Amino acid sequence: MYQFAVIGLGYVGLRTALALSGHKQFVIGYDVNKERLSELACNYDCNLDRSEAQLEGHTIQLTDDSNRLKDANFYIVDIGTPVNEFYVPDMSVLKIVCKTLGSVLKAKDVIVFESTVYPGATEEIFIPLLEQVSQLKCGVDFFVGYSPERIVPGDEAHDIVNTPKIIAGQDAATLKIIEKAYALFVDSKLVSVSCIKAAEAAKVLENIQRDVNIALMNEYTTVMDRLNVSMSEVLMAAGTKWNFLPFRPGLVGGHCISVDPYYLIYKARGLHVDTDLINSARKVNENFTQFISNKLVSTLMTQYPKVSNLNVTILGLSYKKNVSDTRNSLSFHLVSQLTEKGFNVTCCDPLALIKEHSIDFQRLDWESLPKQQAFVIAVDHDDFKEIGIDGICEKLLPYGMILDIPGLFYQSRLPRNDITYWSV
Amino acid sequence: MYQFAVIGLGYVGLRTALALSGHKQFVIGYDVNKERLSELACNYDCNLDRSEAQLEGHTIQLTDDSNRLKDANFYIVDIGTPVNEFYVPDMSVLKIVCKTLGSVLKAKDVIVFESTVYPGATEEIFIPLLEQVSQLKCGVDFFVGYSPERIVPGDEAHDIVNTPKIIAGQDAATLKIIEKAYALFVDSKLVSVSCIKAAEAAKVLENIQRDVNIALMNEYTTVMDRLNVSMSEVLMAAGTKWNFLPFRPGLVGGHCISVDPYYLIYKARGLHVDTDLINSARKVNENFTQFISNKLVSTLMTQYPKVSNLNVTILGLSYKKNVSDTRNSLSFHLVSQLTEKGFNVTCCDPLALIKEHSIDFQRLDWESLPKQQAFVIAVDHDDFKEIGIDGICEKLLPYGMILDIPGLFYQSRLPRNDITYWSV
Repeated sequence: MYQFAVIGLGYVGLRTALALSGHKQFVIGYDVNKERLSELACNYDCNLDRSEAQLEGHTIQLTDDSNRLKDANFYIVDIGTPVNEFYVPDMSVLKIVCKTLGSVLKAKDVIVFESTVYPGATEEIFIPLLEQVSQLKCGVDFFVGYSPERIVPGDEAHDIVNTPKIIAGQDAATLKIIEKAYALFVDSKLVSVSCIKAAEAAKVLENIQRDVNIALMNEYTTVMDRLNVSMSEVLMAAGTKWNFLPFRPGLVGGHCISVDPYYLIYKARGLHVDTDLINSARKVNENFTQFISNKLVSTLMTQYPKVSNLNVTILGLSYKKNVSDTRNSLSFHLVSQLTEKGFNVTCCDPLALIKEHSIDFQRLDWESLPKQQAFVIAVDHDDFKEIGIDGICEKLLPYGMILDIPGLFYQSRLPRNDITYWSV
Repeated sequence: MYQFAVIGLGYVGLRTALALSGHKQFVIGYDVNKERLSELACNYDCNLDRSEAQLEGHTIQLTDDSNRLKDANFYIVDIGTPVNEFYVPDMSVLKIVCKTLGSVLKAKDVIVFESTVYPGATEEIFIPLLEQVSQLKCGVDFFVGYSPERIVPGDEAHDIVNTPKIIAGQDAATLKIIEKAYALFVDSKLVSVSCIKAAEAAKVLENIQRDVNIALMNEYTTVMDRLNVSMSEVLMAAGTKWNFLPFRPGLVGGHCISVDPYYLIYKARGLHVDTDLINSARKVNENFTQFISNKLVSTLMTQYPKVSNLNVTILGLSYKKNVSDTRNSLSFHLVSQLTEKGFNVTCCDPLALIKEHSIDFQRLDWESLPKQQAFVIAVDHDDFKEIGIDGICEKLLPYGMILDIPGLFYQSRLPRNDITYWSV
């Protein structure tokens, strides 16, 4: 009998624990964040990823007491893996978890890591740490596997129960055990790979591919802009070829796409293998806000004698559409860059959940927002779509500008002709 | 009434002229290559792109006499646009064509360029040249448009008659004329864009996207190799995610994907816009043969005391599967690099059409080929598939190696166990 424990109840851990609960499995949900635990106990997910209805009736045994973990024998680790301010992998929380697990491990226990890491991390870092603390031998006393999470926050169509799940074990016998355990709560196909490193590498590649493709669109946008060609029109035209991939330019933030490439870059550097392309993609995506800021300045300069003290509002602080998560959101880069250029910057986002932030910024509700010289639409929340181009223009002073990064109102009719609208 | 002339009867011009002929349009086929003209007159396409049956009964008026062009009033220009040895756009033939056309232009003539060029080239280079030679005014006396060709050689599924065709004119009236003319022989959707630059940019982006995606796979392969992880297994695993794009590592040659990015890079440099990502992709793809050569050496070194004078055969000289075209084929880079490393290099390709080449190399039929220490499969021609892994192994000396870049025999059973097989 498997007694599951999910370590970390972020959006991945929560969905995993819910899948286990939904499949009538014994499941402990462990997290050190007491507030998160009490919210989940009341069926509230602050990430807005799971609804009250989806949480209702769950049987997850929520706890922050590591001693309770001794009741489990199959641990699924869903801990976030960010980078630090130098863009270097920060696996500190994951290492703490390894120490916690090391202190509760018993004979025959299985641990499966689901956190995105660079290929090699599980075997080079986590296993030695588990062995050191537990004084048990991995592969003899306890067993380790890896199964990358593939959840896209806000994506209702693809869940843990219907997305093929890659699984890997430290050896063939462990893989068999993991396969049996996951089959209990994953309804979709289990895809076995021959080693943990291959599974780690597959996950990182998925996200790097997305990063690189968006970076290409961002780089191309900067060229098109200099040529006075509409990138949206170019994309429409190119999109009529059967094999063209419909990526769009945009701000790449969040805890996955904008972070995972740095894990691979870090590891590759240690191996003395060049990753110039992956590096370039990151650089292009990180710098795209500079292009946007400069575009705003150069356009407003044609309408106003000077740009300092003009009011500009950034619409959207979360890292993507319809989510509350603001981790690595490039909107904050926009705040800094526009403030530096002398604008009075305000932010407006009905969803974004921010407790504290290293950057000072003013935030107002849409209703309280005074008229502005410019809006930068950074995120295409449905709320902004609802306000509509007319609603936004109502809050725009004469000769104002709308800079629409996601192209939310591309080809919409403007209610006044003094307004400058720009989209990629 | 439109009287068409297709300028340049390479694989694009031929398909275009055939589409016109097939739609019962008057069409002159102009090329300066007399040999090509006489072959086409006998229904033979040396590119192996069109079969005898497809050519039979065509009504293309083949000529190398530019005076004949005076009978036309609608010119479609399908001239190749390569780069020179410094990877700088070489539009010299296209410029000669502009001079030829300038000398025959009459009032109301229309010229549509289909060659891939950087955004801006048509208006900045070709139009001034046409005006200068003809002493006519573009937009008044004659009219210019642009419609990028989208033919993929060897792809039977997508032809000029069923692939949406982007069209652009120097002004709205010209666009209308072009639309009417193209509707006469293009059965698929015509996609109008607002300016010539946007159409030029769309085409280049299509090919750059492909280049960048393959480059990512090549770069990732070099990291995986250092980690001793099978890239093929990583791709199999990542490929089970619903939005993963199934690109593969490989040699990027040919007259499109490996060339078009340089056109954009060239133009962007002139505009002082960075294209680091597009540059990096090119660099990765150009350098991939070095990775392959090094892999061959390091593997053979574990079996043989020294690699100099070992016999290695490269299977495949054309730039892709089942075509005879060898333009910018990276197989020639392999020849140079392996020769430099001291190997006796032989090439084998039943299709490749080579008249002369800057690189000296030995070429043999499969039947005449003596036993080898190693094979590098560079191209996955069906002929090689037919020879099969057993056939190749028969020509392999003891402890020989097969390095299979396209993964033609990935997961095939080897007939002997002294053989080393490596695929990405």
